[in-house]
Amino acid sequence: MNIEIKEYMHRLGSAARKAGHALARADTRQKNMALNAIASFIERDVDALLEANAKDLAAAEAAGLDAALTDRLRLTAATVAQMAEGVRQVAALPDPVGEMSDFSYRPSGIQVGKMRVPLGVIGIIYESRPNVTADAAALCLKSGNATILRGGSEAFHSNQAIARCVHEGLRFADLPPAAVQVVETTDRAAVGELITLSEFVDVIVPRGGKGLIERISREARVPVIKHLDGNCHVFIDDAANPDKALAIAVNAKTHRYGTCNTMETLLVHEAFANYILPELAERFAAKGVELRGCGRTRAILGDRVAEAGEEDWSTEYLAPILAIRVVKGLDEAIAHINHYGSHHTDAIVTEDYSRARRFLREVDSSSVMVNASTRFADGFEYGLGAEIGISTDKIHARGPVGLKGLTSEKWVVLGEGQIRE
Amino acid sequence: MNIEIKEYMHRLGSAARKAGHALARADTRQKNMALNAIASFIERDVDALLEANAKDLAAAEAAGLDAALTDRLRLTAATVAQMAEGVRQVAALPDPVGEMSDFSYRPSGIQVGKMRVPLGVIGIIYESRPNVTADAAALCLKSGNATILRGGSEAFHSNQAIARCVHEGLRFADLPPAAVQVVETTDRAAVGELITLSEFVDVIVPRGGKGLIERISREARVPVIKHLDGNCHVFIDDAANPDKALAIAVNAKTHRYGTCNTMETLLVHEAFANYILPELAERFAAKGVELRGCGRTRAILGDRVAEAGEEDWSTEYLAPILAIRVVKGLDEAIAHINHYGSHHTDAIVTEDYSRARRFLREVDSSSVMVNASTRFADGFEYGLGAEIGISTDKIHARGPVGLKGLTSEKWVVLGEGQIRE
Repeated sequence: MNIEIKEYMHRLGSAARKAGHALARADTRQKNMALNAIASFIERDVDALLEANAKDLAAAEAAGLDAALTDRLRLTAATVAQMAEGVRQVAALPDPVGEMSDFSYRPSGIQVGKMRVPLGVIGIIYESRPNVTADAAALCLKSGNATILRGGSEAFHSNQAIARCVHEGLRFADLPPAAVQVVETTDRAAVGELITLSEFVDVIVPRGGKGLIERISREARVPVIKHLDGNCHVFIDDAANPDKALAIAVNAKTHRYGTCNTMETLLVHEAFANYILPELAERFAAKGVELRGCGRTRAILGDRVAEAGEEDWSTEYLAPILAIRVVKGLDEAIAHINHYGSHHTDAIVTEDYSRARRFLREVDSSSVMVNASTRFADGFEYGLGAEIGISTDKIHARGPVGLKGLTSEKWVVLGEGQIRE
Repeated sequence: MNIEIKEYMHRLGSAARKAGHALARADTRQKNMALNAIASFIERDVDALLEANAKDLAAAEAAGLDAALTDRLRLTAATVAQMAEGVRQVAALPDPVGEMSDFSYRPSGIQVGKMRVPLGVIGIIYESRPNVTADAAALCLKSGNATILRGGSEAFHSNQAIARCVHEGLRFADLPPAAVQVVETTDRAAVGELITLSEFVDVIVPRGGKGLIERISREARVPVIKHLDGNCHVFIDDAANPDKALAIAVNAKTHRYGTCNTMETLLVHEAFANYILPELAERFAAKGVELRGCGRTRAILGDRVAEAGEEDWSTEYLAPILAIRVVKGLDEAIAHINHYGSHHTDAIVTEDYSRARRFLREVDSSSVMVNASTRFADGFEYGLGAEIGISTDKIHARGPVGLKGLTSEKWVVLGEGQIRE
């Protein structure tokens, strides 16, 4: 069986590489034509998509899948319409491929600049969320990359139904259907093959739980753009505007609990803690947020706050729980964030110019903010149009990864016959 | 012994991580002060450096090292002076760290942009060339990265002597000596440890033979910026200016034989082959270049050209040998290059606007050129000031890697108390 899977994935890879070359040559008009056609076919086929999804939902129910997972798996007429609209939005984004920049003349007489190019073939491994199939296909197509999609097995029928719309759209625009391939087996061995297909796959984007992503990163023989966890901080400085501090801290924690850009630890300047913590505790209590604090926090808030253990500082709760620590000032805040944080998104609330500058420079995270909620760390909010994920890696792409993150730049040299002396 | 090496490399890694934080905070003035001091100490210690180098040369002679390797290993008063000058040139380059760009307001009211930041800790594994020790240390220091250098064991004493100058320079500028660490063992196990120290090392740059680089890439658990080989092409179109074609083809092949940006295969448009090949063959014969051609080339040049086999199209000769193929035109040239090439550097010689545009777009190489010699693919020629290597990877950095290639960008959000609704 593994031999069969190996051969099957090799075939997918080889076809993707070939399709990738065609896609890299495709012009903007042709790619947009495919995207708009895909959106139309998704809308046209709403009944077939819901029918395929019903099969997946029935199997999920029989297998006793939990409510949150089933919820992610479920398609409705409204979410299908959103999916189509998302694909149209990607069509409307500027095409990054072929962008040329930074051309300057060198003393030798050559003119040197850069051209943005696709990465080639992108493998995406994701959970059982059918909408990701359409989103990821659209972003890869627009950025000129062929893609091999391997979604969660619970969404198998839904993904295959979406794939049919995608293929029809590609053919409509005279692009090879192999530009987007959805793996047609639920055998887990396919993932192991995909992440080691270095001959045909240029980058892997894994999405899902931390354990899965760590395992994929460890075993991959292809570069991985990954997101591990989001242990985000807000530091309230003693030069903070208290209204901004309260609004940002509450928003960063309670706007949504399950997202990677949600604040998990609040740091408060010791000269401001007595003043701001009681009001904050009241607001969090009103939202039902459990507080876990350091000794100094507990000295101020008493039994409104539980005792935080060492592990709390590095925990991504993804729940209505918040760790709070009182710090001596900016240095301790930065040291805490760089030590315990996940280098995702961290914010300072302050009106002090020099401390804001130092925080921005010295906090080693993919997003650093002054006087804004960590919840803004998002491809749409940053103006990328869409995102394939948020990278906590340092090389290639940090933070929200949009179309540009799926491309690279090559050097272009324009000459008039120059040779090197 | 391996336990000892493991512990030793772990200590280096941990110290590098700490020093990296200090270096990321260091300002331009402080880094330049260190670099200029290092240059001065290298000049001051020229006798000690030559003495250490003499030890390495004696050992190399005793071990029967070949002439080319011994040549790379040798330092002279002149090369030591060049080394110091190279470090000063890096001091004179603009500091990429902290560069901010692309700030724009979003509908939410936040202002979003990017800040250039160091990668963190860079591990460099290289052959027995002592000058690389100073070059690499300087580039990493300027870009705010701590570095762990593991040079070839034949250069052990030379590298340690250079390291002493580097450490003195770092201390002079009040920077931690652990910002540049030269591995103090020749045990090969140290390399295996370095490339798997994912806790402390952010990227590995291997330099040397293809076999070594492939092995390191396979075994590394840390991202690798690598250069495999340079199988570069020049395509002479039938719309080429013949003078430019002759000059570029001869320069690309014969300017230097052993460099990665040297042309290894020449492609000639069939409508131009009869006209240009005899003259080219004469010029190459005068330089002592052996020609290996396809059937059509041999039909034109007769016994001046040997028969090229399939393997010639993918060989990086690094020698006065050239493969020549007559092609039907642009499509076949592009297909040949993308299939057999190493995605390093490829050039077209043509006066045809549309073909030049297509070549630039469709050739999937880190450098693509029109009417210029492939020998220009170089960090100095491109204006990077210096290079740590030439990447044939697609993600993160393609082509010559200078200071910017040793950095990444984080997102910066500036707000006035914005929260997400």
